[in-house]
Amino acid sequence: MPEPKNHFTIGIVDDVTFTSLPEVPEIALGGAGMFQAKFFGLGADGTVGANKNSVKIIGDNTDKYCQAYFSYDSKKSGGFTCSHLRFGDTPIRSTYLVTTPNFVACHVQAYLHMYDVTRGLQKNGTFLLNTIFDDAELEKFMPNKVKRYFAQNNITVYTINATKIAQEIGLGNRTNTILQSAFFRITEVIPVELAVEKMKAAALKSYGAKGQDVVDKNYAAIDRGGEFKKFEVKPEWANLADDAEKQDDAPAFVKELVRPINAQAGDLLKVSDFVKHGTVDGSWEVGTAAYEKRGVEAFVPAWNSENCIQCNQCAYICPHAAIRPFVLTDDELAGFDGLTTLEMKAPAAMKGMHFVIEPSVLDCLGCGNCADICPGHPKKGKALTMVPFNPDAADMKKMAADWDKLVKVPSKQDLVDIRSNVKNSQFAQPLFEFSGACSGCGETPYVKLLSQLFGDRQMIANATGCSSIYSASIPSTPYTKNEKGQGPVFNNSLFEDFCEFGLGMALGNKKMKERVAKLLCEASENAPAEFKALAEEWIANKDDADKTKEIAPKLREAIAAGAEAGCEFCKELKTLDHYLVKRSQWIIGGDGASYDIGYGGLDHVIASGEDVNILVLDTEVYSNTGGQASKATPLGAIAQFAAQGKRIRKKDLGMIATTYGYVYVAQIAMGADHNQTLKAIREAEAWHGPSIVIAYAPCINHGLKAKGGMGKSQAEEKKAVECGYWHLWRYNPALAEEGKNPFSLDSKEPNWENFHDFLLGEVRYLSVKKAYPNEAEELFAEAQKMAQLRYKTYIRKAAENWED
Amino acid sequence: MPEPKNHFTIGIVDDVTFTSLPEVPEIALGGAGMFQAKFFGLGADGTVGANKNSVKIIGDNTDKYCQAYFSYDSKKSGGFTCSHLRFGDTPIRSTYLVTTPNFVACHVQAYLHMYDVTRGLQKNGTFLLNTIFDDAELEKFMPNKVKRYFAQNNITVYTINATKIAQEIGLGNRTNTILQSAFFRITEVIPVELAVEKMKAAALKSYGAKGQDVVDKNYAAIDRGGEFKKFEVKPEWANLADDAEKQDDAPAFVKELVRPINAQAGDLLKVSDFVKHGTVDGSWEVGTAAYEKRGVEAFVPAWNSENCIQCNQCAYICPHAAIRPFVLTDDELAGFDGLTTLEMKAPAAMKGMHFVIEPSVLDCLGCGNCADICPGHPKKGKALTMVPFNPDAADMKKMAADWDKLVKVPSKQDLVDIRSNVKNSQFAQPLFEFSGACSGCGETPYVKLLSQLFGDRQMIANATGCSSIYSASIPSTPYTKNEKGQGPVFNNSLFEDFCEFGLGMALGNKKMKERVAKLLCEASENAPAEFKALAEEWIANKDDADKTKEIAPKLREAIAAGAEAGCEFCKELKTLDHYLVKRSQWIIGGDGASYDIGYGGLDHVIASGEDVNILVLDTEVYSNTGGQASKATPLGAIAQFAAQGKRIRKKDLGMIATTYGYVYVAQIAMGADHNQTLKAIREAEAWHGPSIVIAYAPCINHGLKAKGGMGKSQAEEKKAVECGYWHLWRYNPALAEEGKNPFSLDSKEPNWENFHDFLLGEVRYLSVKKAYPNEAEELFAEAQKMAQLRYKTYIRKAAENWED
Repeated sequence: MPEPKNHFTIGIVDDVTFTSLPEVPEIALGGAGMFQAKFFGLGADGTVGANKNSVKIIGDNTDKYCQAYFSYDSKKSGGFTCSHLRFGDTPIRSTYLVTTPNFVACHVQAYLHMYDVTRGLQKNGTFLLNTIFDDAELEKFMPNKVKRYFAQNNITVYTINATKIAQEIGLGNRTNTILQSAFFRITEVIPVELAVEKMKAAALKSYGAKGQDVVDKNYAAIDRGGEFKKFEVKPEWANLADDAEKQDDAPAFVKELVRPINAQAGDLLKVSDFVKHGTVDGSWEVGTAAYEKRGVEAFVPAWNSENCIQCNQCAYICPHAAIRPFVLTDDELAGFDGLTTLEMKAPAAMKGMHFVIEPSVLDCLGCGNCADICPGHPKKGKALTMVPFNPDAADMKKMAADWDKLVKVPSKQDLVDIRSNVKNSQFAQPLFEFSGACSGCGETPYVKLLSQLFGDRQMIANATGCSSIYSASIPSTPYTKNEKGQGPVFNNSLFEDFCEFGLGMALGNKKMKERVAKLLCEASENAPAEFKALAEEWIANKDDADKTKEIAPKLREAIAAGAEAGCEFCKELKTLDHYLVKRSQWIIGGDGASYDIGYGGLDHVIASGEDVNILVLDTEVYSNTGGQASKATPLGAIAQFAAQGKRIRKKDLGMIATTYGYVYVAQIAMGADHNQTLKAIREAEAWHGPSIVIAYAPCINHGLKAKGGMGKSQAEEKKAVECGYWHLWRYNPALAEEGKNPFSLDSKEPNWENFHDFLLGEVRYLSVKKAYPNEAEELFAEAQKMAQLRYKTYIRKAAENWED
Repeated sequence: MPEPKNHFTIGIVDDVTFTSLPEVPEIALGGAGMFQAKFFGLGADGTVGANKNSVKIIGDNTDKYCQAYFSYDSKKSGGFTCSHLRFGDTPIRSTYLVTTPNFVACHVQAYLHMYDVTRGLQKNGTFLLNTIFDDAELEKFMPNKVKRYFAQNNITVYTINATKIAQEIGLGNRTNTILQSAFFRITEVIPVELAVEKMKAAALKSYGAKGQDVVDKNYAAIDRGGEFKKFEVKPEWANLADDAEKQDDAPAFVKELVRPINAQAGDLLKVSDFVKHGTVDGSWEVGTAAYEKRGVEAFVPAWNSENCIQCNQCAYICPHAAIRPFVLTDDELAGFDGLTTLEMKAPAAMKGMHFVIEPSVLDCLGCGNCADICPGHPKKGKALTMVPFNPDAADMKKMAADWDKLVKVPSKQDLVDIRSNVKNSQFAQPLFEFSGACSGCGETPYVKLLSQLFGDRQMIANATGCSSIYSASIPSTPYTKNEKGQGPVFNNSLFEDFCEFGLGMALGNKKMKERVAKLLCEASENAPAEFKALAEEWIANKDDADKTKEIAPKLREAIAAGAEAGCEFCKELKTLDHYLVKRSQWIIGGDGASYDIGYGGLDHVIASGEDVNILVLDTEVYSNTGGQASKATPLGAIAQFAAQGKRIRKKDLGMIATTYGYVYVAQIAMGADHNQTLKAIREAEAWHGPSIVIAYAPCINHGLKAKGGMGKSQAEEKKAVECGYWHLWRYNPALAEEGKNPFSLDSKEPNWENFHDFLLGEVRYLSVKKAYPNEAEELFAEAQKMAQLRYKTYIRKAAENWED
């Protein structure tokens, strides 16, 4: 719909990374949109629909009104945002996004190719582009479609190299303020002098307390916003044809649904497009994330085969499934051109095959955890190093091409027991890959590992939270399927009922298996002896994953034969034969859901005694909503709603669960102990009752101070355990049944002297010190005392006498 | 509104006791109303509004329709019910109670005096009365008002002695079937032969499985329903004046609101009646239960002073606060006529005073627990025996009159430390008395004890459930106030938020105290030194109950003086001076609320660290809604939704709460250990943090098999602990702070050999044996194993090493 005439409407497209607890004070919360929202007094919760009414913005005597909406995609970082601003002389009460802007600013030049940035831009309108190119380079870079639009609609185009200016000023890659200043200067929605004055006042207010240096940088950014220049639009562009479309082998579902939605053009899709692809019931194809190939990172790992000891740890801890070991036969290797490989000596079943560690340079988010934890050759050093990513470089293109071929090489995972050790586990294909999680996310390595171990028969009930967003940021689905078409089933429910939701899945599955067993008995009565034997074998082993995997294909054949022969029971069984392999029920949630909002349900579900597995991704705050304190937040940590540091110790969810006696419980931290993590997850799944695994997960909300930030998330887990901040243990009820102490403390006696330094290595604690210097040390000492109390509980638990 | 012409409308007033798990199979669930509902195929959930549409009742060729509604008061037992029936030849869709019946049956002769049983009865209508009187006696007994109504409206009156008939048949006091048969015979709403046939068919269907004997008794009841006779209505009664109203000293609130509502005439009250008494905001006067003087029990305790050792245990365990020790000075005793007393030797402060144990014969519910647990004289025997209750006997009248005078004698509780021991605690006035709980209720002794220890400064947040019903069955309020006008504040919220509700109360109170402290500081600046000293003393001790009680009166005076002198801070303080005494926040709920539906909130509240006290009344089932299984239900018990016996062990709520480390936790059972109960409650309240006390409470849903049933509820608690079914322990975080093990196991090593017998002593377990003889023993053995596992957990906990 056209905008009302008296409104000047603006769209600003930008990238956005959700961050909080910024230690460097000049970062505005969120991206450009949020910054502008703040400047205009609109608050920082700039979700669509947040500001139905405009606010009066300028001075006491000027009746100028501004309204702002924001639209995002659902990536946790490196995502897309669009600010929709309206200015007018009277109050504005539009309840919809800007669709026909007078002005468009594009802050990321790559977006010219990814999004329809000129969509709706009015005739004679204005376009501002942040670009590092000169005019000639830009003309070459700019898509024909954009050029044509400019020429046909008499658009005035300006460019500015805000990226360069920001670096010169010392603002790093923070271009917001420069571009905001350029925006005011070009549009003159308010007098430029007034805008400059107001912007400077805002900068002083926001950063005054941080020192003159920071204020000065922002002043400089405001002043240099005038360094834009006009870009000539050539009349002949009006007749340009579209550029040729890039061809690839993506399925129609991706081309016709996923890509338009990713390109912010989902609102142009028709209902019939969804009907065509069978998604009108809310289901969605898996594996679409693999077609994004975002290439948004600054660095990628490079593999130096000479230093590689084939330990597979890089793949184990990769949050994005973007670095993997591949195993090739001679024949398979022959299909590659110049692929560096190593000869395999172990495991025995792979002896003589060819081993390669390959990163997916277009899927990697560049966190660097792989290189950080790579043990490498004892003398020669690491086998992985982070190198700058350049999508146009030949070596990067070759790596991308190799990756595309390698993922099509048949998996060798069936040659080994993938559950037996960390190395083997990584020969299993991750059925969770390239999620929208933050670079270096502490949660996703756990989720990915589950998908490798149990993904081919896994059912997932996910709580709302980060994990529900990165696991199903439609149109992008990271859960995928293997070459047999098997993969996890995923659904997401609320914070407050995620465990009940998963219990429902498990009970439904149980009932269907009972039905299968009944039908098998009925069918057996008049069936051949072999059928009967198979049916009996299945019934006796129906809760054994490996056995059912073994029996299922034979039984499926026998059922098909029975149906063919006219057996009515077999005909029904045929419709139910996907229940033959024992499923693995997982319930995944964050600490907000598990410790707080969904805890009543979690308790009810573990009490039920049913065979479900709960994975708690413990970031110790509500990560997805911006870091509010939960009952998992430790004493002393700063968080939303606990701005002076939390004053109550962390709830011991694991210990609580042990009181039932029939619940498998574990506390893990992958980076601290790869083996213990694998062991706990394996035991949890094997226990034929409720299991709960609490996994420590560093998060951007923690503000890791170590150089590399979230690229050290795995190392931070290690530190956390070594200093006593987090403890590793398992409570296995199977041992109690044998008269043994079911509790084992798996982490060593901590070096408590490192506890204090660990706290200061995270902004969530460091901020307490900055804001409350007098109380902080006391609070930290108390935090350590609480961790020690907790540790003592575990020591006592481990010392218990369970002999009769 | 007048009933539609083609409906024959009926009201049947009866008493009702909610029971479930009946072991004697011929008891219909509920009273007459429910029985009829069942007979007419209407189901047993006969709450008002349940049956909007009538059902077709008779044969295939008879178009006869019946509709039924039921109205109750909210007593848990001995309450009032009225069945509202309509019969017609076409479907009935009336959405309101019967107001102008053609026929009224009154099944309880006492109701002639208590309720307006002829209200709305149509001219030329019919009245049936169940009475043990002959016509002459009845004429004498019947109120003038009723007689006049009969005479003025040409009512045909019938009487029947169903009570006697039931006894003759062997149906005890179950008169329902007889009266139902009489009803059909008198009204002929359907042909009598058909009614008899249908009633017998229903009896056979209901009781066929229980044996011919039971069926025969019901057949006899149906046959003898014809033994009614006409009662002559004398024309001269038309001019009778009303009987003189009974005079008493009840306040206007009781006379003008409470009594009309109790008499089922609340719908005749006007809004202005509520305005007059200031109850339009939903608040209600406390202490109204004391004016009911229901006199509904069959037996009352009689005190034999010679055998009394003045231990006060009878008062301690009385569920109804209907037996109490009174202490009189010589002067006070002089005001009584022939009151038997004992001279007091202890406690020292009462030496030489006069001691009397007095039951309130009109408030007692006759359970008999007092007599059962009375230790009495070692040689001479018990000091209490249960004797039949006859409200008209002279001794009973004297006891009632003595009681009325004794409760007006000033309490001597301030002479002793009421918290120091069980005996002293009972010199404290119960501020919770004569509730509508079932006779012998296992819950109310705990609730009453709290009111004695903390009632003068207690705030109560109550979960929905039995305790919310018997604590506030408006118009009857058992919470009351002492002679100073102090008493508990009570409010009731939901199952699912009762703890949050109580936390809100506590936080509100905390905030107000902070405000008082701030105002005191401000007022102190220009106040006399004495004011300042008092203010400082209060601030330093504001969380100490005893200290604030001591300081408050003086400080209140000082504030009043300050306000008088014009201090603005003091003026505001005056409006807040009810916050000066430290309040005691209690949160009371059943196991359904605490273990299940409200558990998420309970966890959040204990995690908060705030100073609240939670009392869990653990009946191991949802008592109020009819006995559904909760997570507190032990393995093996039969319950609604767990009809084959629960297969999962009982949740250990107490152990869960201990994991926080800063929560006081206790498990108690009054009947098993009077002292441990007192100690735990005392410690819980004294702990300046969250406390949770889990109290074992036998319930009518358990079906105690012991002779005397719920009259043995205290003895059952003892048995439960002795056999290992329930354990007594305390977890006191204050000890951990001293480096001591905070856990102490207070009950002795159980006699496990009695465990099995204990189970068989309760219908909830016995029923499993009857219904599933093959599995029951296995289940019971498993139940014992679970109790033993639990006990071992406590043993391990008690053995922990807490030294540094």
